[in-house]
Amino acid sequence: MLESLKEKVLQANLDLVKHKLVLFTWGNVSEFDRETGCLVIKPSGVSYETMTAEDMVVVDLNGKAVEGKLRPSSDTPTHIEFYKAFPTVGGVTHTHSTYATAWAQAGRDIPFYGTTHADYFYGDIPCARSLTQEEIEGEYEKNTGLAIIERFQRDNIDPKAVPGVLIKSHGVFAFGKDGAESVYHAAVIEEVAKMATLTETINPNVKRADQFMMDKHYLRKHGKNAYYGQGK
Amino acid sequence: MLESLKEKVLQANLDLVKHKLVLFTWGNVSEFDRETGCLVIKPSGVSYETMTAEDMVVVDLNGKAVEGKLRPSSDTPTHIEFYKAFPTVGGVTHTHSTYATAWAQAGRDIPFYGTTHADYFYGDIPCARSLTQEEIEGEYEKNTGLAIIERFQRDNIDPKAVPGVLIKSHGVFAFGKDGAESVYHAAVIEEVAKMATLTETINPNVKRADQFMMDKHYLRKHGKNAYYGQGK
Amino acid sequence: MLESLKEKVLQANLDLVKHKLVLFTWGNVSEFDRETGCLVIKPSGVSYETMTAEDMVVVDLNGKAVEGKLRPSSDTPTHIEFYKAFPTVGGVTHTHSTYATAWAQAGRDIPFYGTTHADYFYGDIPCARSLTQEEIEGEYEKNTGLAIIERFQRDNIDPKAVPGVLIKSHGVFAFGKDGAESVYHAAVIEEVAKMATLTETINPNVKRADQFMMDKHYLRKHGKNAYYGQGK
Amino acid sequence: MLESLKEKVLQANLDLVKHKLVLFTWGNVSEFDRETGCLVIKPSGVSYETMTAEDMVVVDLNGKAVEGKLRPSSDTPTHIEFYKAFPTVGGVTHTHSTYATAWAQAGRDIPFYGTTHADYFYGDIPCARSLTQEEIEGEYEKNTGLAIIERFQRDNIDPKAVPGVLIKSHGVFAFGKDGAESVYHAAVIEEVAKMATLTETINPNVKRADQFMMDKHYLRKHGKNAYYGQGK
Repeated sequence: MLESLKEKVLQANLDLVKHKLVLFTWGNVSEFDRETGCLVIKPSGVSYETMTAEDMVVVDLNGKAVEGKLRPSSDTPTHIEFYKAFPTVGGVTHTHSTYATAWAQAGRDIPFYGTTHADYFYGDIPCARSLTQEEIEGEYEKNTGLAIIERFQRDNIDPKAVPGVLIKSHGVFAFGKDGAESVYHAAVIEEVAKMATLTETINPNVKRADQFMMDKHYLRKHGKNAYYGQGK
Repeated sequence: MLESLKEKVLQANLDLVKHKLVLFTWGNVSEFDRETGCLVIKPSGVSYETMTAEDMVVVDLNGKAVEGKLRPSSDTPTHIEFYKAFPTVGGVTHTHSTYATAWAQAGRDIPFYGTTHADYFYGDIPCARSLTQEEIEGEYEKNTGLAIIERFQRDNIDPKAVPGVLIKSHGVFAFGKDGAESVYHAAVIEEVAKMATLTETINPNVKRADQFMMDKHYLRKHGKNAYYGQGK
Repeated sequence: MLESLKEKVLQANLDLVKHKLVLFTWGNVSEFDRETGCLVIKPSGVSYETMTAEDMVVVDLNGKAVEGKLRPSSDTPTHIEFYKAFPTVGGVTHTHSTYATAWAQAGRDIPFYGTTHADYFYGDIPCARSLTQEEIEGEYEKNTGLAIIERFQRDNIDPKAVPGVLIKSHGVFAFGKDGAESVYHAAVIEEVAKMATLTETINPNVKRADQFMMDKHYLRKHGKNAYYGQGK
Repeated sequence: MLESLKEKVLQANLDLVKHKLVLFTWGNVSEFDRETGCLVIKPSGVSYETMTAEDMVVVDLNGKAVEGKLRPSSDTPTHIEFYKAFPTVGGVTHTHSTYATAWAQAGRDIPFYGTTHADYFYGDIPCARSLTQEEIEGEYEKNTGLAIIERFQRDNIDPKAVPGVLIKSHGVFAFGKDGAESVYHAAVIEEVAKMATLTETINPNVKRADQFMMDKHYLRKHGKNAYYGQGK
């Protein structure tokens, strides 16, 4: 089942390598099929170099592997929470890309410093809180998803307008309408995280850029008045 | 029309990729044909991997697409202002290369710290001011060009002698006698921006280099007494 | 003798190049064969580009070259001390990878800042002390090994749980069950060292991550309750 | 004349590209033939991509082009001073590699922080002083060489033991027994410069490493008791 989706998910996972967002097996991409209520995800701990579409695992929203010879990514319960909570999210990427992970380890939201950021993120890129000992010792991966969702709900963040998030002391999750777009957003986060690091090095007193610039740039690319690109 | 120019502009755009000055579709190069009064520019939001010479768009100085099936870059009105204001500029590159953009986000001119800089830029690389809310909500891309031109005029900067500029919270524009040279200058700015960042990290009290060194290095390569290279 | 092991050790040495952990000949990998009591190691000062399996040198635990036309790595006595002291170590990598070496030169343990670290290292990555003048002027390479072992013994560190170490003003040694795994761990150390550098740049007041997170992540991948990967 | 030397010098220049020590045409390598008293050097401003052995220029110690259709590098007079002053120098590299140039712009000697440095440089890597206005407006390239030689003489530095130097606000010169070795040393300087930058970032209070470690590492690789590599 879902053969063409497996192929798409394989390609999205390989894009992690192409964009240098992953070392060894430290990332995974899934895509959700709302019709069957299943997601397709990378198998756990398998090398990108030898992975085939057939290795992709089909999992339902209860975390049950519906098809596939291999175990799904150990981060699957995190992905599931996003698909359950966010109806507009159709793809999820998790990775430990260098600069984004450094911001996660530093425990800081990535501030809006310029248009590269605003072209894709309508707001700072949030860093969700650390998990408690109880959350970590319990259903850890599921609780990772819940802590992120808690942050989005508390601050009323729309995952379509802010398609990515850091989690304290860990790494990055990126969202998209499909797996490929979530990888694209993960690449944007990594570049924005690098630029923000350098920006603060060059000017330690730098302030967030103007909100009206964010409005302009985000809406130039998104929404009904967008005029970037070739239209539909 | 302008078939050979389209090929040149395509190659210049692909040079952005070759010199790692661009992620995804975040850059564009144009070249101006003074005879027809038209520029040729990259189409908006199209991938460098699949782009052909035929995809290049011909636009006149009123911003009207004269030929081409695709929409021109959304930054076209900025390019147009440069061709109107600067008679020596025949090519323009806009990009979000990492270090140059970090300086733009930091809102600082890149100081002259050494001969790598002076070989191409006869003065600091300026960072133009932020746009006002009114400018951003109005003809944003055109106003971006005007804010840059304002800085060049205020400080009496010659875009031939200082063939590049940052714009606050955004990115970099580079100039050249043609598209290819503007990409070359964009690559120089990125390298000079990286070196300047590191220079200040290594010596936070560093001062600008001597003006007479700038005179020497710039004039060694430019003007009638230049002796670098193979002459004409 | 040990022909297949020579091939494995060659490949592990070439992986240093693949993972960009080495410039010129500045690294070496060995693997120990407990049956014969010999290790196979890279020859000294030979280029990775021309090296063949036949060039690998077989050395016994007294440092005597048992087979091979070339001199073994000058760091061989350090490798030997590890195989003598640590029964679970079957492979050793020594290299001067950029970020790990910078931490070694800075003389600091790499603090546990996140899960990328905890997935492989159950504790900070230690930096062993400088050698004394006497130790350096005596059996230098052997004493390098002894200073590292002293640190592991003093702090009761298990080289299986913390498979890598820095040595002050020098570089990094990584351990594994075989040569290939020791290279893998060297790559992890380099990435973790880079992330830690950036983390402190982004947040100079950052604290070590929670111990219960380290417990969770390390034990998710290691030990009898591990659930990462495809099992045995 | 000197056909095989031209081929060697071409290869050495191409190694600048291979080791990422050069952007565009910003570097040059020469090698000296003591028999004829001539050096062979890269032509000025010619692209590495199209350069052939025939393009190399033969110049005598008076700076006269003895053979070659192209102008020699504009830095030729600097190279000449080194061959005149330093009898053990047989090859010279000049480049603007990123980290080394940042140290030059910062105007600091690169301190000895570890064995990577000591394996090739028996002492800090010096940064020669800025040139005066008179020196710059006079025989600039020659005076660059003289300022460097002045520093070596003042501090009694042997260019064989310290085969490289920075010059304030400019870049790096590296020495070797031939052109290829001077490029090798330029690559070492770049890596050591990067490591030193990171070392100071990680530990702003870091001190120079111990002199007896420098003695050991340098003499392990150089001089009559060297035991690194495969001997003669």
